[in-house]
Amino acid sequence: MNEQLIITILDYVGTFAFAVSGALAAAEKKFDIFGAIFLGFVTAIGGGTLRDCMIGNTPVAWLHNINIFYTIMFAVLVTFLFRTTIVKFFKALFLFDTIGISVFTIIGIQKGFAADISIPTAIMMGIATAVVGGVFRDVLCNDIPLIFHKEIYATACLIGGIAYVALCQFDYNGVAAIVAACLIFTVRTLSVRYNWSLPRFK
Amino acid sequence: MNEQLIITILDYVGTFAFAVSGALAAAEKKFDIFGAIFLGFVTAIGGGTLRDCMIGNTPVAWLHNINIFYTIMFAVLVTFLFRTTIVKFFKALFLFDTIGISVFTIIGIQKGFAADISIPTAIMMGIATAVVGGVFRDVLCNDIPLIFHKEIYATACLIGGIAYVALCQFDYNGVAAIVAACLIFTVRTLSVRYNWSLPRFK
Amino acid sequence: MNEQLIITILDYVGTFAFAVSGALAAAEKKFDIFGAIFLGFVTAIGGGTLRDCMIGNTPVAWLHNINIFYTIMFAVLVTFLFRTTIVKFFKALFLFDTIGISVFTIIGIQKGFAADISIPTAIMMGIATAVVGGVFRDVLCNDIPLIFHKEIYATACLIGGIAYVALCQFDYNGVAAIVAACLIFTVRTLSVRYNWSLPRFK
Repeated sequence: MNEQLIITILDYVGTFAFAVSGALAAAEKKFDIFGAIFLGFVTAIGGGTLRDCMIGNTPVAWLHNINIFYTIMFAVLVTFLFRTTIVKFFKALFLFDTIGISVFTIIGIQKGFAADISIPTAIMMGIATAVVGGVFRDVLCNDIPLIFHKEIYATACLIGGIAYVALCQFDYNGVAAIVAACLIFTVRTLSVRYNWSLPRFK
Repeated sequence: MNEQLIITILDYVGTFAFAVSGALAAAEKKFDIFGAIFLGFVTAIGGGTLRDCMIGNTPVAWLHNINIFYTIMFAVLVTFLFRTTIVKFFKALFLFDTIGISVFTIIGIQKGFAADISIPTAIMMGIATAVVGGVFRDVLCNDIPLIFHKEIYATACLIGGIAYVALCQFDYNGVAAIVAACLIFTVRTLSVRYNWSLPRFK
Repeated sequence: MNEQLIITILDYVGTFAFAVSGALAAAEKKFDIFGAIFLGFVTAIGGGTLRDCMIGNTPVAWLHNINIFYTIMFAVLVTFLFRTTIVKFFKALFLFDTIGISVFTIIGIQKGFAADISIPTAIMMGIATAVVGGVFRDVLCNDIPLIFHKEIYATACLIGGIAYVALCQFDYNGVAAIVAACLIFTVRTLSVRYNWSLPRFK
């Protein structure tokens, strides 16, 4: 099976998961259905939009892919209708969200390389793609962004990003992408299960 | 009278109204005069700036139109000097703000079409142009954005946006623009008068 | 000595200082080391990134200058390790921050002129370059931005920006840049020492 096809499918899965997380945040704050759509969009496309604006990939990617639009609308609608069920299957959401950051990190790095920027900044573009949507979501809800005081999150993206870049030296990018995305997924999952955290200011 | 000219005039009216609303928010939070100018600018140009950055219309529109600059400075100064009078004529402000979102929605959609993006995303560009400035204003004031928990607002833009796109199929854009802007104005005004609201999460 | 070289050196000093201020804010909020890196970056490159996106200078400047990346990482690391010492030498930080806004204002105006925008909007690009990183930092920490209720800050940038533009009419830009940056530095320093402030809404 084609690796780029796998990435594309996982991209929709990640978009769906992020849109659900935005809609759930809207639900918690008792926003109306429009607020849920707005927050679903910002969470799902925020990171990629910032990345594309900084790199100069304009119009930004999702403006030319109507399927992203439908994916997000569908995710918000599903959340609106079946919220209790979704919250009950919280582990499924965690699964989706983790797939989301895994794939978005790799896609961000690929777009960074395509724009011919240096390796460290390309890895940063990857991390930004994965985490910035959630930052926007939290700012709009008037909360301190989760990534600042939660378990390993961006760090998983960083580790996977470095692995991806290293693997690209030896192999063609397709396999590297899959392996690195799996690594992010694993680190994130283990960090939540075993409650890992980073050193903190004293 | 030329329709595009009407749109241009209303664009200044909208910019003026949004800048006043930013300056009033600054007044409520007891910011200094610089804070009022900053907030006036962000509210008036925030939506259009985000739209132009996402589409790739750079330098963004207001950087090449010095009259926008003067309009905003004038609006903030007027608010600073005659605040009590402005608050008393609150309905006049509501009028201006409603004209603002009506016109900004149509302008945003027009720019989306000019960038050759699909219809649903062009309508989103229109809504973003109309509402994002106010979102920035509220975030900077450390409030939860009004549009998330207020009466019909973005929904009026959505309805008008769909009407505009539909009318463009049958007619030349000038008349469609005026009719759609009037529709947004009407829906918003009626929704406030009769206290309409969207379904909410339970 | 070459004036542009001085500006370049001061640019790194300003970047360093802003990154430290971001990391200090992260420390105050008890974020982890990743949060400190994130906030250091946003504070140091936020203003320049917004400016470059609005003007259309993409990829934005720091994506092509790996030294900016290293400067910020170094600043955050230093803050993480020697926080108490840094806070004790608070005046040194104030010194750095003030050098930062002085230089960033001039660089922003130069980039505005290079993009062929009008004088008032170029000055605004200068002020945005200097202050927006700090605004992002405060929003992410869920605080009302400091510049809205603190001593003369952006006003110093405004005065220096006007001086720079005026001097550019008479002299070659290098000397104008140094003189204007010194003026910003002086106004800001005096305003803090003598507790100057702007008129406020009543």
